[in-house]
Amino acid sequence: MFNDDFSSKLLSEAVNQFAKLPGIGKKTALRLVLHLLNQDIEQVENFGQSIIKLKKEIKICRKCNNLSDNDLCDICADPRRDNSVVCIVENIKDIIAIEKTMQFKGVYHVLGGLISPLDGIAPSDLTISSLENRLKNENIKEVVFALNTTMEGETTCFYLFKKLKEYNVEISSIARGVGFGDELEYTDEMTLGRAIANRVKYQS
Amino acid sequence: MFNDDFSSKLLSEAVNQFAKLPGIGKKTALRLVLHLLNQDIEQVENFGQSIIKLKKEIKICRKCNNLSDNDLCDICADPRRDNSVVCIVENIKDIIAIEKTMQFKGVYHVLGGLISPLDGIAPSDLTISSLENRLKNENIKEVVFALNTTMEGETTCFYLFKKLKEYNVEISSIARGVGFGDELEYTDEMTLGRAIANRVKYQS
Repeated sequence: MFNDDFSSKLLSEAVNQFAKLPGIGKKTALRLVLHLLNQDIEQVENFGQSIIKLKKEIKICRKCNNLSDNDLCDICADPRRDNSVVCIVENIKDIIAIEKTMQFKGVYHVLGGLISPLDGIAPSDLTISSLENRLKNENIKEVVFALNTTMEGETTCFYLFKKLKEYNVEISSIARGVGFGDELEYTDEMTLGRAIANRVKYQS
Repeated sequence: MFNDDFSSKLLSEAVNQFAKLPGIGKKTALRLVLHLLNQDIEQVENFGQSIIKLKKEIKICRKCNNLSDNDLCDICADPRRDNSVVCIVENIKDIIAIEKTMQFKGVYHVLGGLISPLDGIAPSDLTISSLENRLKNENIKEVVFALNTTMEGETTCFYLFKKLKEYNVEISSIARGVGFGDELEYTDEMTLGRAIANRVKYQS
């Protein structure tokens, strides 16, 4: 039916492909496709090929499971990074967010998800055994949890904490509390309550 | 700089390509790219190739300038359409909008823009001469203007009206007025004023 509206199968096909993307409806898809159609053929080829090339050539870092161009990702391969501190994250988006802060000089380990019985995600679906291998074979001194404060994140933290206790490694978690610039008035009860309970003493 | 954040040139390249699309920022681009990365290679190839194929193979209908898979678009080639009524639209999006109403059984003529001295668009930049050729060579009885009610749309209507007067053809415009379901209270003064001035008499 929608095909007929377009009077062109080629256009219809491209719009339908774009409309499959999350958050992109048919109208937006048409707008994006017509925008690309107005570009040079070279630019359109660059666009289309970039995603195909990515899918075909992208690798998973053999150490941390980050997306990578090579066997070892740029972070793991960087000699300036501190290999003794490993930050545990759910996915690559979290790595990007932490890297942007430029506050972390260690390396990462991507779990590939969080334990979630409701979604059928068990500990064995995550990269926990490869994390244990790293703890056995690398000289890791500290593991930092940087997982979301959802039910799944907390469950995963708890599970990992129990698992990692057998290794001679310090375990920490990123600080939770009221965000910088947040107003107390609008901070949710859970966050504010925990921030009070976990208050930090001034050093005298 | 952004490249470093991603620790993968392939990923960075794909995200940058998506971020060039109108209304798509870097964060959305990353979300879309990671979504595609989770699909099968076949689906990713279909996505990338669909837009390249469109750009390479799409044609412009030699009669109405609509986007088309062939020399003649599906609408112009359809024997059930009334070739004697031509609807003048700015672009292909307007054709899609009118086709959806299923109320128009004639054919179209795509101007490819509107006269706009501010944007440097002169009548010669539009497909007006090809419209005149159609009026000379085809058996056209009526021309319907379906242009936006902007300054540019009105200017173009006026220009075309003067041009087309020499041809033995009826000229009309789609009806302007208060939209169905619109409340008078919230209708802008211009629309309401014109709707009163151009009131339609009940047939007795």
